[in-house]
Amino acid sequence: MMIYNPDIKTTEHAHWLVVSGSHLVINAIDNSLIEGTWEKVPFIHEYRNELVQVGEIDGKPCYLVDMGSEQIESDELTTLNLRAMMMQMGVDWFSILARAWQVALFLRTHRFCGQCGSRMEHVGWEMAMQCHTCSHRCYPRVSPCIIVAIRDGERILLAQGRNHKNEMHSTLAGFVESGESLEEAVHREVFEEVGVKVKNLEYFSSQPWPFPHSLMVGFLAEYDSGDIQVDGDEILRADWFTADNLPNIPPTFSIAGQLIQETLKKMK
Amino acid sequence: MMIYNPDIKTTEHAHWLVVSGSHLVINAIDNSLIEGTWEKVPFIHEYRNELVQVGEIDGKPCYLVDMGSEQIESDELTTLNLRAMMMQMGVDWFSILARAWQVALFLRTHRFCGQCGSRMEHVGWEMAMQCHTCSHRCYPRVSPCIIVAIRDGERILLAQGRNHKNEMHSTLAGFVESGESLEEAVHREVFEEVGVKVKNLEYFSSQPWPFPHSLMVGFLAEYDSGDIQVDGDEILRADWFTADNLPNIPPTFSIAGQLIQETLKKMK
Repeated sequence: MMIYNPDIKTTEHAHWLVVSGSHLVINAIDNSLIEGTWEKVPFIHEYRNELVQVGEIDGKPCYLVDMGSEQIESDELTTLNLRAMMMQMGVDWFSILARAWQVALFLRTHRFCGQCGSRMEHVGWEMAMQCHTCSHRCYPRVSPCIIVAIRDGERILLAQGRNHKNEMHSTLAGFVESGESLEEAVHREVFEEVGVKVKNLEYFSSQPWPFPHSLMVGFLAEYDSGDIQVDGDEILRADWFTADNLPNIPPTFSIAGQLIQETLKKMK
Repeated sequence: MMIYNPDIKTTEHAHWLVVSGSHLVINAIDNSLIEGTWEKVPFIHEYRNELVQVGEIDGKPCYLVDMGSEQIESDELTTLNLRAMMMQMGVDWFSILARAWQVALFLRTHRFCGQCGSRMEHVGWEMAMQCHTCSHRCYPRVSPCIIVAIRDGERILLAQGRNHKNEMHSTLAGFVESGESLEEAVHREVFEEVGVKVKNLEYFSSQPWPFPHSLMVGFLAEYDSGDIQVDGDEILRADWFTADNLPNIPPTFSIAGQLIQETLKKMK
């Protein structure tokens, strides 16, 4: 449930998800999220007409307050990278913060109409921006992205992407392009990234991922043919691993981790 | 393979996919698509620097020429609704025209930067628009959309949507929202549209659908509980049908038709 410019009861306790750049504004004293009544958070009063209710936690409404590129100036407050913060919190908070971040990003990137350049305005009853000059309407993007675990008998193919830290090796993933099915995207991405062909695709499950607005769609696949070749740019290295010789892999909290666990089961 | 502003060989035979509004410009004499060398199509020469190669058919390149809202003025040419035209052609042409239409729509709706309002420019090496003022980059949208066939024993639930012609009844479908998995979207959409709950979701397959830029992700589901209730707005009516008493249904060319056939098999 998302409500743009909600009716704030000034005595109601709420969670205030204050975003500045790509950071979340939190209490400096204990790194806790900001909560309390409207009167207790005077520094956000100037954003009164831009609040978005992005959900509820523990019976308290969660309001997104997007400061855009404005920085916070207060000794009592500090900021933490939103993505890092989300990774440390439970699944309920992950989900709420993910939604808040996606709404913030949507509103920031749809202030002007892509078609005619006019200012866009909020559609009151749904999460959309509308141009009143040329009638163009935009909704938040959800970008489908395939992610695939490849098995060859008792081996799994894992790759280290450019952005993976601590030599983490994961499954392959990539955005679906216009005019492609999910299955076509799997075949194309795998071939582009590691130069091999796969077969026997099996749908696994899906997971929203808010960086920036992905919907990960997971598949299990079997190796068909070809030798591993990486471009050394997006993918630094890729190799086959047996169950007793795994590299550093993603946590099972992520669909990548779940795909790997499922493939390990099939390897036994 | 898409190439923006490709190098046109003036003696090479090509297909010219000329779009005006939501119509395709074709030869008036026999309703055929326009083909021939660059010299044979002088009326598109003013669009020379905006051509996009969207693929190849029969060894000839296919070039998108988007006239935007400009109308054609020639006795030798006429226009036909692009969507209607695509429905009548084979799968290769459907696919090329779908890509052309999505590229045209992407370029039309990303002329200005949504973040700062500046003019956007093409990224030469990939299908993207870039703002050189604030660095915002946009790719063509692909919007994931679930579509689901619901079975209760030997009955299938089919619904007549507001836009369905000839009393056609189909499976339920709807866009995935920010922060949702595909499975969550299935449960939400089914409940919103017909008021019932479903269980035992099974992934079926996926199909790109270019109106406007959907990726249909098909599921089979079983009825769990609840009585059918429609809002009468998006969905005009919905009901359970047995195999010997089916209404007008979509062709098997579409994923909707395929989902219905698969469910009919399970009903036997």
